[in-house]
Amino acid sequence: MASQSGDGAQKTVVLAYSGGLDTSCILVWLREQGYQVVAYLANIGQDEDFTAAKQKAEKLGAIKAAIDNKASFISHGATGKGNDQVRFELGVAALAPNIKTLAPWRMPSFYNRFQGRADLFAYAQQNGIPLPVTPKKPWSMDANLLHISYESGVLEKPSTVAPRDLYQMTSDPESAPDKPHLLTIHFKEGIPVRVMDHTEIKEITDPYKMLEHLNLVGGRHGVGRIDIVENRFVGLKSRGVYECPGGEILYQTHLDLETYTLDREVFHIKEELAVKLAKLAYNGFWFSPEGQYVFGCVKASQKDVTGTVHCKLYKGSVHILSRDAPVGLYNEQLVSMDVQGDYEPMDAEGFIKINGIRLRESHRTAHS
Amino acid sequence: MASQSGDGAQKTVVLAYSGGLDTSCILVWLREQGYQVVAYLANIGQDEDFTAAKQKAEKLGAIKAAIDNKASFISHGATGKGNDQVRFELGVAALAPNIKTLAPWRMPSFYNRFQGRADLFAYAQQNGIPLPVTPKKPWSMDANLLHISYESGVLEKPSTVAPRDLYQMTSDPESAPDKPHLLTIHFKEGIPVRVMDHTEIKEITDPYKMLEHLNLVGGRHGVGRIDIVENRFVGLKSRGVYECPGGEILYQTHLDLETYTLDREVFHIKEELAVKLAKLAYNGFWFSPEGQYVFGCVKASQKDVTGTVHCKLYKGSVHILSRDAPVGLYNEQLVSMDVQGDYEPMDAEGFIKINGIRLRESHRTAHS
Amino acid sequence: MASQSGDGAQKTVVLAYSGGLDTSCILVWLREQGYQVVAYLANIGQDEDFTAAKQKAEKLGAIKAAIDNKASFISHGATGKGNDQVRFELGVAALAPNIKTLAPWRMPSFYNRFQGRADLFAYAQQNGIPLPVTPKKPWSMDANLLHISYESGVLEKPSTVAPRDLYQMTSDPESAPDKPHLLTIHFKEGIPVRVMDHTEIKEITDPYKMLEHLNLVGGRHGVGRIDIVENRFVGLKSRGVYECPGGEILYQTHLDLETYTLDREVFHIKEELAVKLAKLAYNGFWFSPEGQYVFGCVKASQKDVTGTVHCKLYKGSVHILSRDAPVGLYNEQLVSMDVQGDYEPMDAEGFIKINGIRLRESHRTAHS
Amino acid sequence: MASQSGDGAQKTVVLAYSGGLDTSCILVWLREQGYQVVAYLANIGQDEDFTAAKQKAEKLGAIKAAIDNKASFISHGATGKGNDQVRFELGVAALAPNIKTLAPWRMPSFYNRFQGRADLFAYAQQNGIPLPVTPKKPWSMDANLLHISYESGVLEKPSTVAPRDLYQMTSDPESAPDKPHLLTIHFKEGIPVRVMDHTEIKEITDPYKMLEHLNLVGGRHGVGRIDIVENRFVGLKSRGVYECPGGEILYQTHLDLETYTLDREVFHIKEELAVKLAKLAYNGFWFSPEGQYVFGCVKASQKDVTGTVHCKLYKGSVHILSRDAPVGLYNEQLVSMDVQGDYEPMDAEGFIKINGIRLRESHRTAHS
Repeated sequence: MASQSGDGAQKTVVLAYSGGLDTSCILVWLREQGYQVVAYLANIGQDEDFTAAKQKAEKLGAIKAAIDNKASFISHGATGKGNDQVRFELGVAALAPNIKTLAPWRMPSFYNRFQGRADLFAYAQQNGIPLPVTPKKPWSMDANLLHISYESGVLEKPSTVAPRDLYQMTSDPESAPDKPHLLTIHFKEGIPVRVMDHTEIKEITDPYKMLEHLNLVGGRHGVGRIDIVENRFVGLKSRGVYECPGGEILYQTHLDLETYTLDREVFHIKEELAVKLAKLAYNGFWFSPEGQYVFGCVKASQKDVTGTVHCKLYKGSVHILSRDAPVGLYNEQLVSMDVQGDYEPMDAEGFIKINGIRLRESHRTAHS
Repeated sequence: MASQSGDGAQKTVVLAYSGGLDTSCILVWLREQGYQVVAYLANIGQDEDFTAAKQKAEKLGAIKAAIDNKASFISHGATGKGNDQVRFELGVAALAPNIKTLAPWRMPSFYNRFQGRADLFAYAQQNGIPLPVTPKKPWSMDANLLHISYESGVLEKPSTVAPRDLYQMTSDPESAPDKPHLLTIHFKEGIPVRVMDHTEIKEITDPYKMLEHLNLVGGRHGVGRIDIVENRFVGLKSRGVYECPGGEILYQTHLDLETYTLDREVFHIKEELAVKLAKLAYNGFWFSPEGQYVFGCVKASQKDVTGTVHCKLYKGSVHILSRDAPVGLYNEQLVSMDVQGDYEPMDAEGFIKINGIRLRESHRTAHS
Repeated sequence: MASQSGDGAQKTVVLAYSGGLDTSCILVWLREQGYQVVAYLANIGQDEDFTAAKQKAEKLGAIKAAIDNKASFISHGATGKGNDQVRFELGVAALAPNIKTLAPWRMPSFYNRFQGRADLFAYAQQNGIPLPVTPKKPWSMDANLLHISYESGVLEKPSTVAPRDLYQMTSDPESAPDKPHLLTIHFKEGIPVRVMDHTEIKEITDPYKMLEHLNLVGGRHGVGRIDIVENRFVGLKSRGVYECPGGEILYQTHLDLETYTLDREVFHIKEELAVKLAKLAYNGFWFSPEGQYVFGCVKASQKDVTGTVHCKLYKGSVHILSRDAPVGLYNEQLVSMDVQGDYEPMDAEGFIKINGIRLRESHRTAHS
Repeated sequence: MASQSGDGAQKTVVLAYSGGLDTSCILVWLREQGYQVVAYLANIGQDEDFTAAKQKAEKLGAIKAAIDNKASFISHGATGKGNDQVRFELGVAALAPNIKTLAPWRMPSFYNRFQGRADLFAYAQQNGIPLPVTPKKPWSMDANLLHISYESGVLEKPSTVAPRDLYQMTSDPESAPDKPHLLTIHFKEGIPVRVMDHTEIKEITDPYKMLEHLNLVGGRHGVGRIDIVENRFVGLKSRGVYECPGGEILYQTHLDLETYTLDREVFHIKEELAVKLAKLAYNGFWFSPEGQYVFGCVKASQKDVTGTVHCKLYKGSVHILSRDAPVGLYNEQLVSMDVQGDYEPMDAEGFIKINGIRLRESHRTAHS
């Protein structure tokens, strides 16, 4: 959904629009400042009425005109204390560095004018912005295909238990089904390529539908809730609650297949790189030189991560049951306690003794 | 429990004795080789009949005499393919490098004589070693206060689901109580110092009893089961099943308190060190110079990890509910979306722009 | 040297004062803005006429009054593109977070007024600031006991060779003495405690005088020059030329003693931590929680780094000649090719074979 | 050079042959044990009379027959305490795991028979092995195109200065030319592709000849000597002296170009990987899964390392003078102190303040 109004090429701004009160006010306010506004609402899997949002944006002055000139500004409704602003703007810096960002919640002319919710309401009424019909929840929320995150409001006190009615993507484990759900996930070179749902007797191979289905059944069984105090890139500690049912299932099964199929040392090196990649993504450096470099290295580690993992969803957990791989480093004969295989027990003697040399030497030094 | 027999000082061996068939045969076999044997059975929290084991060892020729001479040998019944032999012997190398190890399962004179279970049975009958009254389980098992591990036998096939009757320390989550269990764990400088059990209305502060109680209630709720293919230090991949209910509860709550109380960067550095320490411990290098060094560094990171974590045990999971700390880096006012606190939103602008410089430059280079 | 004028407690600013044109103009400009200025010139080993600088500062309106009230501001003459501003201000944030910083080169009211050197000259003449008698060098320079750094101006072009007359602390290796200089450095727990100068037949134990002497003789022999393109914390690449003669001698000799006295694995872990510490120091995070934490860990690694290193300075290099330690992990008998020592050659067989298991398995997989 | 004798397919052994006393005795001894021996002497750039070695091997019973059957054994003369045996045999494990290694210096039947040099001499005389005409140097030595390493004998005492007549590849810096040597090295994607020798007015592009030339001129100027106590993989500390003139020049110039052309964070990540790769290569894991994986990651980092570095060789050192690159991240305008470029000084304010938040918070906590 993209819309636009006005005529000054220099002053076209693409606004990341949600259809909510904040970005609606920002839309009108930007027009007030002389910008023509293109409202952009991306479908990233969130549960949203896209048509209603489109109509609302048009009503507020966007979308009416064809896009006949390039935008030189981009705008969003993220606050000045969060990670979203950073991710948003570092992405722009990496991909389209000539575009300037307008972040109203960091602009005194905006945040001094809208000091509280009452100011937004008044402004909305003056400008024909429909007021929200449901009362604002006492927390904020962000959703996409992979997860919902909740923060602020009542969650700001880390010693308070998150409210039961917060969660939208997952059941409370205590009210989840009493019968477990059985799944097999197939991976090819680290990528999930097939979900076998043994409970619903169903096979899915479309990537979007796989994640959607895992969200559905994982959510039903209360899988993937996290309550954590995280460390934002801007240096603040913040309490967040997350729901990520499908992601949790994929994470657990993928990790199991990695330990099964990857060489020990490759796995350890890959783990360090993956931790780096996670930090880079969290801090908004996905499109940075180092983000792309580390991503390439992690990807290169996955060429042997092919196989299946069998798991059970039950009352909030993913339980790994077993795994298999067409070709792999696991060598049943070699490890067997009943068969000697290709392994000389006496070799372990030398292995241990040589590994002990430094320790003996350290003992000698400490006692000399 | 320590016992001894014989008279040649040079030939005294301390045997790590379990009371089972293997180490009983080893005990007799070592005496046959001319060693006087001190059978040593440490109480590390495993479920064991120590009196029976003592009587059995005495019957087989150990313990009768007072310890009147130093041992120069140590012996164990660990196999030549596992991690235990390494941990055992690297510990000796670090702490008492003059003591030599006899590892019968790596000595051809032993393993060629005892090629199967039948040979052990025959030897036991010839030497008055009581035969096990229960049939051998089709897996091997190791237990201490912290955990039980299972491996080999039917578990050697990673595509086979572990048998239901394997587990001794934890209930099957599916038959665990329907009512969750509420706990608060108090930590002081990273160490658990108090367990408040809100369900049983009980407070425990003795370290041993805390872990015992967490094992009990964690086990009752099916917490702490892991099924994994691990990478042994000797280079083999091996499938292991673990039960670690109390440890799981302490791990999850401690981690939560760390993210809450530690500075972000200190936490990240400590995490890298902790991964190193875990590998060192797994591979038997706890008493090595690097093991002791890293342990000291990790310990130094814990001085601010003081506070409480509130959690819920339910059907196999530990759910973190909330946390609190007397003094801490969490600053509710600073992070609040409703209060500006000591935070200037405009500063984020410069922060992001400066962080974006490298990204802009990289874009420039890629497009020049 | 600390001086102060005026009376408004709220408006007292401590200025990091160098006595040069820039900070003299800043001094006057700050007074113009209504601040009372305390000029502070720290003696960190740079070559400076402290008395002249004091008189100059007094002449410009500082130092006259006793310090009878606390300063709430701090100011410096660092530019907005460099690392110095960051180190300065992160130090303040860590140690005295209530003090605010005034950085004129980042304040439009200052930098718009002083757009070039001509503006500073005019302002100086108007305000009785003595003009520099020597023409400005076409580069900037920063000095302390440990080093001199040069950057900007003609150095900004990395393809240009640095001018021969740039260097103030070191001779050109080509005109350095033809006779080498012999030194022995004694370390105790990682700290240099004695310098034996065999060429000048001199022994020094005072820390300050040791470094001063190593700078002198190292500089004479052209030791410690570096020409590098570095990566500033603010994201810029910048060409810098450094002289660090005493530091280079201490670095090389200390490193040699570390590899000699430290356990291999402790050394590797310490190296990773030292790289982290260097980055933290470079970026201004010395007084941060992580800076202090890592410093403590690095320090803990040094308890066995005691001994002496013998080296030769010659035409720009430090050559390590030999080393000794009272007690150490080096075991001449163990490593000797002529003596078997406490080492069983056959143990290496098992060590290698076990280390080769993963490699054999990888070969098997790749060819199956 | 490959030679062979005998007829039993099962018993063919390829011996890594140097032509010296040790491997000549091993050759004869292996034949005595019933093996047919193929003597293999690889040309890896060492200074060697290959024809003489071939004749000697033939005289001792190798090379006479055509290679008409596959070898199932490999043998070498490396000692049981060193790294060479490990590298040799891990290479075999990775590339040809079915081939078995015979390491006589680890076989009691060999090392008990040849307990000293006198035993080797006697055996040589009995078996027509020519005795060395020059007395054995009191150290051992290993050479290839890249370096010469020296160890053992008089070097085993780390407090003894290495003898002046040890070095074969480099001049003593004190007797090196008084006139420096000027070079420019061209790199393409991290690989040296051209050496411009400005002193000899010469251009070289052939890889082998480039390294040969850099060894020659670097050696002439005394570049690349290292005297170090290293940590062998088998756990021993060992003193080694190295000469690596061409490698030192390439290392220094390549590093300079990397800091110039690589993004800061990519460089740091690559550095960590390069340290890993160096350890893996040193310990013999080049052909391991992790060796190949890390090598691929390091290689991927080099795509932008294209440009030239200008340097000076003088009296033992490589001095970097300047560098240039066709396209690069270095932005003269951006970093210039005289031009604002695309950089807003005020942004640094926010950058520093946000970076200081954690430090302020830490101060608050420590003082609460």
